[in-house]
Amino acid sequence: MKKLTIKDIAKEFKVSISTVSKALNDSYEISQSTKEKIQKYAKEQNYKPNFNALSLKNRSTKTIGVILPTMLNYFFAQVFKGIEKTALEKGYKVITCISNQSYDKEVEIIEMLSNGSIDGFLLSMAKETELSNKFDHFQESIENGTPIVMFDRVAQSISCDKVTTDDLEGATKTVEYLYKKGHKNIAFVSTMSDLHIGKQRLEGYQEGLKNVGLAYDESLVLNIVERDYKKYKNIVRPFIKANKIDAVITTGESVAVSVMKAVKKNDQKIPKDVAVIAFSNGILSRHSSPKMTTISQHGEKMGSAATEILIDKLENKTKEITTKVIQTDLVIRDSTRK
Amino acid sequence: MKKLTIKDIAKEFKVSISTVSKALNDSYEISQSTKEKIQKYAKEQNYKPNFNALSLKNRSTKTIGVILPTMLNYFFAQVFKGIEKTALEKGYKVITCISNQSYDKEVEIIEMLSNGSIDGFLLSMAKETELSNKFDHFQESIENGTPIVMFDRVAQSISCDKVTTDDLEGATKTVEYLYKKGHKNIAFVSTMSDLHIGKQRLEGYQEGLKNVGLAYDESLVLNIVERDYKKYKNIVRPFIKANKIDAVITTGESVAVSVMKAVKKNDQKIPKDVAVIAFSNGILSRHSSPKMTTISQHGEKMGSAATEILIDKLENKTKEITTKVIQTDLVIRDSTRK
Repeated sequence: MKKLTIKDIAKEFKVSISTVSKALNDSYEISQSTKEKIQKYAKEQNYKPNFNALSLKNRSTKTIGVILPTMLNYFFAQVFKGIEKTALEKGYKVITCISNQSYDKEVEIIEMLSNGSIDGFLLSMAKETELSNKFDHFQESIENGTPIVMFDRVAQSISCDKVTTDDLEGATKTVEYLYKKGHKNIAFVSTMSDLHIGKQRLEGYQEGLKNVGLAYDESLVLNIVERDYKKYKNIVRPFIKANKIDAVITTGESVAVSVMKAVKKNDQKIPKDVAVIAFSNGILSRHSSPKMTTISQHGEKMGSAATEILIDKLENKTKEITTKVIQTDLVIRDSTRK
Repeated sequence: MKKLTIKDIAKEFKVSISTVSKALNDSYEISQSTKEKIQKYAKEQNYKPNFNALSLKNRSTKTIGVILPTMLNYFFAQVFKGIEKTALEKGYKVITCISNQSYDKEVEIIEMLSNGSIDGFLLSMAKETELSNKFDHFQESIENGTPIVMFDRVAQSISCDKVTTDDLEGATKTVEYLYKKGHKNIAFVSTMSDLHIGKQRLEGYQEGLKNVGLAYDESLVLNIVERDYKKYKNIVRPFIKANKIDAVITTGESVAVSVMKAVKKNDQKIPKDVAVIAFSNGILSRHSSPKMTTISQHGEKMGSAATEILIDKLENKTKEITTKVIQTDLVIRDSTRK
């Protein structure tokens, strides 16, 4: 028979994991009747708190579990580099798993590693998790004594340490920079309009326009839902052709390459006629022609910061919950005017 | 106290894990005196066979553990796609970890997942493991009843199922193709001369030259030891400048981009003066200018094949050990003459 978990009890009573945890710990926050009901059920079902909840206080594995949402992403590879470096410096080992943007996989990885293999998690949410808004697995891990530090794609409603990029400010600064260089018709092309960071970047773009006194024109915003980057061009080309545009900000490199190709196809010159700037700073920006100006997110710094926060927590140096924001920088290459 | 493992016993007696396993199983292959020594020690130390060795026969998790050597690699991403697809079709879950080319990490991942979380492994060796020739952790996993199917970077000396690319034949066919298109001075640029697959590709290059009657000229082979791809150009440029070359075969895409840049810098045209062909078929080959002709390795097919072999083994459909070789194909783009 499968071992009864705190999650099963929560499901049974249609309450949150946090409620069950508080009920079992006889918290004053929970009504007497609910506490009695839950405690009785737990006893009848022979519920035993998770192994790691009992053991973690006594022993430490000196190992950090890292969950990355995707493999082929230079930004996450940079974050990972920062994590590895800082963990090594502080005498911690790292075990890394890929959720491949799947909620189920993320849950499985957390359950698997929480059997006492690791002391805490560093993770960036799977896309499916963010869209589904199901964060119980995070809550459960934290309640059971395995702390989580989230980076980049973080769950707003979960109370844990977070390290994020200044996506909003990064986009605002970029619009201001382009305006200073003489651009007036600045487009925004997004492949992540459904994610929080995508929304932040769009908001920053709008704020930038406001700051420099340009009107926000919805027809200059392109939200791409297509996931296959090979098909971006079919969506980007008509957009570039149909609009009077002298600069484009994109949420990523891959789509920026498509934008650059569409601009050339349209017999316009980069950066003379159209400037292109992409969020993130990976391998494509250095190999594209012309080389791409990017909004660099400093992934390595983000990874180091998240690791430091987690280790401080594990070693009881702090109980505070913090959110650290890593600043972006413009890396000027050849796709923008000098 | 840490639980005594079969590895500890092997260390104690300075013998292989396989010897300990055979001794404990009273195998006729092991001398009586060695068997007695090892059995006595195991009894004194209260050695218990691994949990999974006992449990795996009785229960199945329907989960496959995948270990990939590196994140930012389009070939492995393709393999992973094939694994996920086939596993899903056959009702298996997949849990994926990254060894980041580290032997220690590979060992940790195998130990962690072998606690009953998975039924078997699909893995491509870490570079450090291949160079160190330490394969005991693989042997131990297999002995303990967790089968392994290796793909691409496989341990020759370990007896397990393997899926490989025809690296040798792929290089041979490429030389023959270039010769047919009129090339006589064909160079070979490798960033993996220390790996088995790198050696196979070099050997295939030499065999191709022999087949078409061209002399092997050592000065047309460049082995790059540098790991930072941003520095490739410093090594590639003098090589291109110093030699009379009309075609280049590279072991990967990233270095092919450097070769193409060096050729242009040298005022030569691609493909008119110099043709370029790279192993693997990833994102750079489609984004490079001109678009790159590649030796496609069919990663997805490799992943599917490896998954099928493992599941057949887990479901006891076969006890045979096989090695399956996936054929490469030339994908002709614009960096070679039509």
